[in-house]
Amino acid sequence: MSKQILILPGDGIGPEIMAEAVKVLELANDKYQLDFQLSYDELGGAAVDKYGVPLADETLERARAADAILLGAVGGPKWDTIDPAIRPERGLLKIRSQLGLFGNLRPALLYPQLAEASSLKPEIVAGLDILIVRELTGGIYFGQPRESKVLDSGERMAFDTLPYSESEIRRIAKVGFDMARVRGKKLCSVDKANVLASSQLWRAVVEEVGKDYPDVALSHMYVDNAAMQLVRAPKQFDVIVTDNMFGDILSDEASMLTGSIGMLPSASLDSNNKGMYEPCHGSAPDIAGQGIANPLATILSVSMMLRYSFNQSVAADAIEQAVSNVLDLGLRTGDIWSEGCQKTDTRAMGDAVVAAL
Amino acid sequence: MSKQILILPGDGIGPEIMAEAVKVLELANDKYQLDFQLSYDELGGAAVDKYGVPLADETLERARAADAILLGAVGGPKWDTIDPAIRPERGLLKIRSQLGLFGNLRPALLYPQLAEASSLKPEIVAGLDILIVRELTGGIYFGQPRESKVLDSGERMAFDTLPYSESEIRRIAKVGFDMARVRGKKLCSVDKANVLASSQLWRAVVEEVGKDYPDVALSHMYVDNAAMQLVRAPKQFDVIVTDNMFGDILSDEASMLTGSIGMLPSASLDSNNKGMYEPCHGSAPDIAGQGIANPLATILSVSMMLRYSFNQSVAADAIEQAVSNVLDLGLRTGDIWSEGCQKTDTRAMGDAVVAAL
Ligand SMILES: CC(C)[C@H](C(=O)O)[C@@H](O)C(=O)O
Ligand SMILES: CC(C)[C@H](C(=O)O)[C@@H](O)C(=O)O
Repeated sequence: MSKQILILPGDGIGPEIMAEAVKVLELANDKYQLDFQLSYDELGGAAVDKYGVPLADETLERARAADAILLGAVGGPKWDTIDPAIRPERGLLKIRSQLGLFGNLRPALLYPQLAEASSLKPEIVAGLDILIVRELTGGIYFGQPRESKVLDSGERMAFDTLPYSESEIRRIAKVGFDMARVRGKKLCSVDKANVLASSQLWRAVVEEVGKDYPDVALSHMYVDNAAMQLVRAPKQFDVIVTDNMFGDILSDEASMLTGSIGMLPSASLDSNNKGMYEPCHGSAPDIAGQGIANPLATILSVSMMLRYSFNQSVAADAIEQAVSNVLDLGLRTGDIWSEGCQKTDTRAMGDAVVAAL
Repeated sequence: MSKQILILPGDGIGPEIMAEAVKVLELANDKYQLDFQLSYDELGGAAVDKYGVPLADETLERARAADAILLGAVGGPKWDTIDPAIRPERGLLKIRSQLGLFGNLRPALLYPQLAEASSLKPEIVAGLDILIVRELTGGIYFGQPRESKVLDSGERMAFDTLPYSESEIRRIAKVGFDMARVRGKKLCSVDKANVLASSQLWRAVVEEVGKDYPDVALSHMYVDNAAMQLVRAPKQFDVIVTDNMFGDILSDEASMLTGSIGMLPSASLDSNNKGMYEPCHGSAPDIAGQGIANPLATILSVSMMLRYSFNQSVAADAIEQAVSNVLDLGLRTGDIWSEGCQKTDTRAMGDAVVAAL
C-alpha cells in the first residue's frame, strides 16, 4: 500500500528549499521503491493568504491522513502585524499539538567539512554530535489558563501556565532513553528543579523511567548550567532531554555551536513514529526568492523521515552520504561558504545531492 | 552617619573568597573614608546548619536594616537531600523577593588579559562587554499558584505560573534603558512574544517605556534566537533586558562566553538602589576548603557595590583598576590560569589586589 507524504513548503525560503528536497525524495522513492505519494498544501503565512488561517481544517485533516509530513519553514514580516491569533507560528503550534507530535528530535552535528564555520574553537567542537530531545506538545507552550487582563487597579497583567503530567514526562523521557541507548548511552535531563514545581516532577519521573534503562547513564542538570556547559564543553553531552521551553532555547543554542544551522534537520514524532520533518532554521525572509538558501537541512529532514517514520535506514544513510559527498566536493551555499570553496545556489546544491545519490 | 554592610559568606568557597573581598572592602573603607560598618550573618546551607532555615527572620531583619549586602555563594551536596522547602537556594530566593531586589545586573565582560580562556574564537569575543539586566523578583520564580498534585486518575501532575504585571515590567525596563543610556545606547529586550501571553505584555510595555528614551535604540528578540546570537555574534549586544527565567539562562550563557566566570560580579538592586552584591559563579563545593578559588568576582562585586549603592565611582574604579593590574602582573588562580602565567591561590590573589590598591 502506498504511503502518503504531505508537503508543506511554507513561507520565505520554504518553497525554494522544498523544491530541492522533493527532488531528492522523488529520486529515493524511485531508487528504493518506497511507493510514496506526494501531495501539497499550505501552512503558516501562505495558509493565511490562501485560507485566512495559518492551519486550515482541511489541511489538518490531510496531515492526519498522511503517513509523514515534510515542512519548509513558516513566518515572515508580511504577517507580523496581523491578529496574533492567526500569526503563522500558530499554525505550526496547532499542527504539532493536534497531531500529538510530542517528541522533537534536534540533532546538533558538526560536519567535519564545515568545522571552520563555528564561532567556537575547533578543539571545542570538533566531532560534536549532540541530540536534543525536546518535549513539543506540553508545558508553557500550551498550558491553560493563560490570560491578559486589566486589574481593578487599572494595571494590565498577563500570565501563562507551565503544567506537566506524569504521562507527558514519561513518554518523552522514554524517547530520550531510547535514543541514548542506540547512541552514546548517556542521557542528560535538563530542568530547573531548584525553582519549579513542574521541574521537580520532571526530575522524579525521569529518574523512575531510568530504572528501565540500566545501560544508559542518566544525569540531571539545571537549565542555566546546561546553557553554560553547551558553550564551555559541548562534547560532554550525548542526548539531552528537556521540556518544551528549555528545549526551544537549548536546541537553538546547540545548533549554533555547529556554525551551520543551515545543515540541521529535525523530526517531531507522535507515539507511533508518525512524524513531521523540518529544517531547524527559519524562513529567512531576508533572502527569500533569491534562490541562494541552503536546502541541505530540508534534504536531511527527508533522510530523518525515511529513518524514523519508514524504517528505511539504507535510503536514509544514502542521502546523508550524498550530502557529505557534496560537501567533500567543496560545494557551498552562501551561509556555509568559506575561502577555497565553490559558492553555489539552492538549485545547484539540490542537483548536486541528486547526482551524488 | 556610618553605612551598614551585611556580609553573608554563605557555603562552599563562599567564606574563602569573602575573606579576600572583605580585605579589599576594608582597605577601600579606610582609604576613601567611606565610614562603612561591617557585620556578619549566614545564608543558605550555613544558615540551615545554624538556624534550621536558609534565611532566618533575624537575618532578614539585619538585611533590611543594612545599606548593602555582600554575598558569597550558597548551596552544596550536604543540603541536597533535605526538605526542598529549606534548601539553600530558597534562602537566596527569599532574600531577593523580601527585599524587593528586582533589578539584577550581570555584566559579561571579557578581560583582554584572559581572552584565551574563552571557548569561542578570539575574533568573536575580543572586547566583549554585555550587560544583562534580569528581572529578579517576578515571573515564574515566584508566580502563584504553583502546585504538585495527584489527579483523580491517580496520575501526578505539577504546574507553575508565569505572571507579569505592567508595573513590574515597567520598572525593570527603565533599569535596562538607564543602563543602555550610559553605555552603548542599545537595548535588546528578549522575550517569547510569539508564544507567551506574559511576553506579549512584556514587549508592549517595554515599547511604551522606550518612548521616554529616544536616545536608546530598542530592539526585540525571541529568547531562542538570543541564545543563538550570543554564540554566533555576541558583540552585537550592548544591554539585554529580560525576565527572570530567560535572564537566568542567558546570563549564564553570556558569562561563559568570556571563559572566566570566576571574574564576573553581579548586583541585585531595589528601587532605591539598595543592593545585594555577589559573584556570578556558584559555591563550587568540589574545591571548597582548598584555598584555591578565584576571589576576583567577589572583589569586583565590592566595586559594583561602591558604584551602585554608594555612588563612590572613584573607589569603584580604583578596585577595578587594581584587579586589572594584578592580571597584568600575570597572577592567575587555577580557573583562569594559562601557560606562561603564575599560578596563585585565593589568599595571594586577594593580597595582590590589596597591594595594587
Ligand atoms: C516559531 C516558534 C513558535 C517555534 C517554537 O518556539 O517552538 C520555533 O522557535 C521552533 O523552535 O520550532
Ligand atoms: C540558585 C538559583 C535559584 C539561582 C537562580 O536560578 O536565580 C541561580 O541560578 C542564579 O542565577 O542566581
